[in-house]
Order: sequence, then structure tokens, then C-alpha cells
Amino acid sequence: MVVMSEPTRNPARSTDVTVLGLGAMGSALATALLDAGRSVTVWNRTPGRAAQSVARGARAAGSVREAVTASPVVVTCLLRYPSIQETLAPVAGELRGRTLVNLTTTTPNESRDLAVWAAGHGADHLDGAIMAVPDMIRSREGQIFYSGSRAAYDILLPTLEIWATSEFHGEDAGRAALLDLAMLSGMYQMFTGFFHGAAMVATMGMSASEFAARQAPFLSAMTHGLAGYAKVVDGGDHTGPGLQSLDFSDLSHLVRASEEQGVDPAPIAAVQALISRQIAAGHGAEGFTRIYESLRLVGSAAGSGEGDAA
Amino acid sequence: MVVMSEPTRNPARSTDVTVLGLGAMGSALATALLDAGRSVTVWNRTPGRAAQSVARGARAAGSVREAVTASPVVVTCLLRYPSIQETLAPVAGELRGRTLVNLTTTTPNESRDLAVWAAGHGADHLDGAIMAVPDMIRSREGQIFYSGSRAAYDILLPTLEIWATSEFHGEDAGRAALLDLAMLSGMYQMFTGFFHGAAMVATMGMSASEFAARQAPFLSAMTHGLAGYAKVVDGGDHTGPGLQSLDFSDLSHLVRASEEQGVDPAPIAAVQALISRQIAAGHGAEGFTRIYESLRLVGSAAGSGEGDAA
Ligand SMILES: NC(=O)c1ccc[n+]([C@@H]2O[C@H](COP(=O)([O-])OP(=O)(O)OC[C@H]3O[C@@H](n4cnc5c(N)ncnc54)[C@H](OP(=O)(O)O)[C@@H]3O)[C@@H](O)[C@H]2O)c1
Ligand SMILES: NC(=O)c1ccc[n+]([C@@H]2O[C@H](COP(=O)([O-])OP(=O)(O)OC[C@H]3O[C@@H](n4cnc5c(N)ncnc54)[C@H](OP(=O)(O)O)[C@@H]3O)[C@@H](O)[C@H]2O)c1
Repeated sequence: MVVMSEPTRNPARSTDVTVLGLGAMGSALATALLDAGRSVTVWNRTPGRAAQSVARGARAAGSVREAVTASPVVVTCLLRYPSIQETLAPVAGELRGRTLVNLTTTTPNESRDLAVWAAGHGADHLDGAIMAVPDMIRSREGQIFYSGSRAAYDILLPTLEIWATSEFHGEDAGRAALLDLAMLSGMYQMFTGFFHGAAMVATMGMSASEFAARQAPFLSAMTHGLAGYAKVVDGGDHTGPGLQSLDFSDLSHLVRASEEQGVDPAPIAAVQALISRQIAAGHGAEGFTRIYESLRLVGSAAGSGEGDAA
Repeated sequence: MVVMSEPTRNPARSTDVTVLGLGAMGSALATALLDAGRSVTVWNRTPGRAAQSVARGARAAGSVREAVTASPVVVTCLLRYPSIQETLAPVAGELRGRTLVNLTTTTPNESRDLAVWAAGHGADHLDGAIMAVPDMIRSREGQIFYSGSRAAYDILLPTLEIWATSEFHGEDAGRAALLDLAMLSGMYQMFTGFFHGAAMVATMGMSASEFAARQAPFLSAMTHGLAGYAKVVDGGDHTGPGLQSLDFSDLSHLVRASEEQGVDPAPIAAVQALISRQIAAGHGAEGFTRIYESLRLVGSAAGSGEGDAA
């Protein structure tokens, strides 16, 4: 690791929290801390983005090193995992004795790698996954899932609760990210389903807005079915009465209709592939919930944490 | 077409409505009509399923021919399109002057084929798509979309409204089916997203039920965003401010995390493929809504009605 020379250096821990990254989310986090009376040091790769936080009382650091050494708690809110490495690796030696709270979206294994890396440099590490858009920070509508150091979580809770409702999900640092990505998977698939449906009805001249006015309440109502599906999945018996069968749920006709209307069937074909796999395995008379079994790969490397940060 | 000989034959139009198919949905439809005071003739391929309707006052027909000739309105509620052909082709000559109301799930092109076929035999045709489960019939919670003969719809409306809120979507017989399938596409993709997320968190020991308790309200809240997305799609400009960019929405990390947890990433990889296609085409800085453009195939045969029923 190359320790780059930094022109300015501030050895004193002069603020409560340092926030690295002043994008939409980082700015919201920094502002929330300031509004709650915390002293905050901020840094952003591209200069100029600190103005808003500084106007609210933040101290702008001239370098990552100055920022990191300014506070006992260092929050990263950057773009993806590689940007954390890029930003922190040159100043890794300064992390000893501090707590790193990573709020950058990462995969579970990246979070685990970061935990190992932070521990290697004598830092405590807490990984957070934000279930909110920037506007929701401080509104209490949002949630942040945390995993990693339980001790750090307990000490920092009064600060974490400034941002959103906090939940601790365990000492395996990857758990918050895993739950976050699992939640987002459903959201992105729902959005894609909406776009797919909108493209289909566009061929009959219906606007996406008119379709959304029907689709949104319908999908919202259909979320009430998830608890029932979950019960079947947890019980492991997909043969119960009252379940729509896989044979009945076969979506070949929907895939075909999508093609015939000139709409790419790929997203719904992916669903049908899961259904077909279970029917081919002889489970056609069982419930639709069996597609869950299609998703669990055999011989997987679940939870493996290969690779290393920085 | 082979007209099979049928042992019994009833030339009189002795009931108001005939229902062909007494599965879960057909039975609910027949029962609703009986409860509303309509006289009903019922028929089911496998004998014995008429008992419930007969107990409520229905007349069981001994053959399709007897059933069809018993009423001016013939409702089909069978499994898929081929079963309508199988059932009606042998008695096509009896349809003249009657109204065929098909409530079997079909593709838009199948509905169009059925309309052409019915017209060829002198029958009026109305195609319905049921947005309800059997329990919701008569509860007013459900909806049925119709398309095809406007005259038939207007005359039958008092009868149709017995089942559910009715909506007429145009004389192109395929429109009800198209809207139905478009609505269901979103639902199935949302369900699949839920199962995918549940499989991911299962690797950290979280039950599907615990996940559903988080996922259902989250997805329900996220449906509020659809109207905004629809506005962008209708406006055709994906560059507006406040839209999460495609680059930001890149889900490669989610696909990778799914693989690493031993969960088949196929359904979310299908979403990512749409995102990648737009980024590769140079639209990464535009909004996430651009994936809609990924779904519209070039050189499509939209709305073509090739093929013929029976
Ligand atoms: N926005 C949301 O709704 C939301 C919700 C949940 C989670 N998150 C997560 O929060 C994190 C930040 O999101 P955001 O909305 O603030 O994104 P954003 O507005 O795009 O800001 C990205 C930030 O990352 C910095 N950055 C990017 N690459 C970097 C690098 N290689 N080295 C140093 N800094 C780098 C950018 O600095 P420059 O100014 O120099 O480019 C900027 O400060 C992401 O991980 C995101 O997934 C966001
Ligand atoms: N159930 C729902 O929630 C729901 C919701 C919306 C739309 N729908 C649609 O309503 C239709 C019926 O659904 P359902 O729930 O009643 O299904 P179901 O309970 O499985 O019943 C299927 C019916 O179709 C008959 N059938 C199947 N193949 C046939 C053939 N080749 N010839 C003659 N009859 C045949 C069956 O007769 P046998 O008894 O002889 O097998 C039975 O009466 C389907 O198109 C479905 O998509 C259902």
C-alpha cells in the first residue's frame, strides 16, 4: 500500500464525526448530524461539494488524511466498494482506534472484506445499509440496517438514530448488505414488471400513466399475499390446498403474448424459466411457491468471503 | 370440422346463461348468477363437478350441445385457449345467434382468433379477463376487463356486473387479455423478486416470514413511485433531474452477491441485462426509467393475428 503524502494534517480529534463523500446521500447524512448538534468534518473527492454542509456549520477538510484524523468516527458514503478502497487505503495507518461506519452500498462479501481490512488496521467497523432516499433521512420513515461490531453499534446508537430507525443484524458484517440487497431485488423486479406491462399496453395505445393508475394499487394489494407464500416456504410443503398450482401458473402464454406484441419477454421469461424447471422436475401439481426452490443453487459457495480489500 | 353426434339435445333456450367449465372460477361465476336470480345451465368435461351448482338451482346439461343450445349466452371458463377449441368446435353450428362470453385466460391474439372464429359461425363474441380470485367474485373487489362486441357488452352489462366491476376496453377483442397479462406480468415479477430476496436472506438464517414482514410494506410503499416513472415514460425524456441514473442503478453487485450466496441470480440478472443494454448504448447518465426503452423490440409483429381457432 502506498501512503501518499498529504500537504495538510490535523492530528487533533476536533469533531465528533467525519463524513467522507458528499453526494446526495452523504450530504443528507452530514446535514442531519449538524442539525442534531454534532460537530462534523466533511470531505469530498471533487472539491466544491462541501459548501452546503459548511454553510450549516461543518468543517471542510483539505485532504482525506485531515478528514480521517479529525474525528473518532469516520463515515464513508461513496459510490461503490472500489471507491472506499481508493479513498481509505492511502491513509489506512490513521484508522487505528477509530470506528469506521461504512454506508456505501456494498455486497455482503465486500462488507466482510472491509471488516477484515479494518480490523487489520486496528479499527472497529460497522456496516450500514440505507433503506431510504436522501429526503427520508431524519424523517423517521427510513431505516438503516447495521451489522459488524456490536460494541460500536451500541456506543454509536444515539448518533445513528439521528439518521433513521436503526436495526442491528449481527456481527457478521455482511448481513446488513445482504438484507438490503434482498429488499432491493424485489423492488427492482417489481419496477421492471411495471415497465414490461406498460410496454405491453402501449401497443394498444394506453399511456404508462393510465397503466400505473391501475398497476400501483393492484401490486400494493398483492403484497398482502407475501406473508402466506412465506409461510409455505418456511414450512417447506408446497402441496397444501388453496395454493395456485405451478401448472396453472405456467406463463408460457404471457411470454408468447409479449413477443407477439413486440415487447421483449426477457424479464417474464426469466420467471417462466423458474416455473418450467419445477414442472420439468415433476412438481407441476404443487404450489406456485415452489419457484423458491428453483432459486437455490446446488453446490454453492454461500457466504464465502474470498478477495481482500485494498 | 367434425360435428360429433351427441346423444341428448335440447332445442329450447330454457335458461338465461350457460356456463361451460366448473373449475374454481367457473363454479364461482355460475353460483353468482344463480344467487342473483338468473337461470343457469352448467356443463363440465369431467362429470360430477356440477353437483354444487345444481344444489343452488342450476340445470346440468348432459352434453356440450345440450348446454350450448340451452341459453342465448354461453360463458366459457376453461383452462387455456386449446380447451375452448376442443369444447366448442364440435358444436360450432349451434352458436349462430348466440353470444359467446369467453372468460378463459387467453393471449390477445388468441382472443382475436376466437372473435374471428365466432363471427364465422354467426355468434357475437365478448372476451373477458378476470382480475380476481374466485373468492372475490360478487365481492365488488374484483374487476373484469372486456373487449370485443360493444353491443353484446351493453346488453349483457346487468349480468356481467353480477360478477365484478366491469370495464369495456374496445372492440379489438385482444385488448382485455392484453391489459390482463400486462397487470399480471408486474405481479409475477414482484412475487419472483420476493422469492429471490427470501432465498438470499435464508443464507443468513432469516425466515421467509420475517423477510415478508419487511418486504411487503416496503414494496407497497414503493408502488407510489410508479406514477412518477410513468410520467417520464409518457414524456419520453429520461434526462430530467431527480431521476436515479442508470449508472447508479447498475445492479452488477446485486447479481454478484446473489451468486456468492448460492442463489440463482437469473431473475435479477434479467433486470440488469436491460440496464446494461441502455448503458452500452450510451444512456448511463439518463434515468433508470430508460430500461423501458430496452423492452421495446425493433421490427416486431405487434398486434398480428395470424393463426385460426378450431
Ligand atoms: N441516493 C440514494 O437514494 C441512496 C439510497 C441508499 C443507499 N445509497 C448509497 O449511498 C452511497 C452514496 O450515494 P449518493 O446518492 O450520495 O451517490 P452520488 O450522489 O452519486 O454521490 C457519490 C459520491 O461518491 C463519491 N465518489 C465516487 N467515486 C469515488 C471515488 N473513486 N473516490 C472517492 N469518492 C468517490 C462522489 O464524489 P465526487 O463528487 O468526487 O464524484 C460522491 O461524493 C451509494 O453507495 C449508494 O448506493 C444511496
Ligand atoms: N382461479 C383464479 O384465480 C382465476 C383468476 C383469473 C382468471 N382465471 C381463469 O379462469 C379459467 C378457469 O380457471 P379455474 O380456476 O376455474 O381453473 P380450474 O379450477 O383448474 O378449472 C379448469 C376447468 O377447465 C376445464 N378444462 C380443462 N381442460 C379442458 C378441456 N380440454 N376441455 C374442456 N374442459 C377443460 C376443467 O374441466 P375438468 O374438470 O374436466 O378438468 C375445469 O372445469 C382459467 O383460464 C384461468 O386462467 C382464474
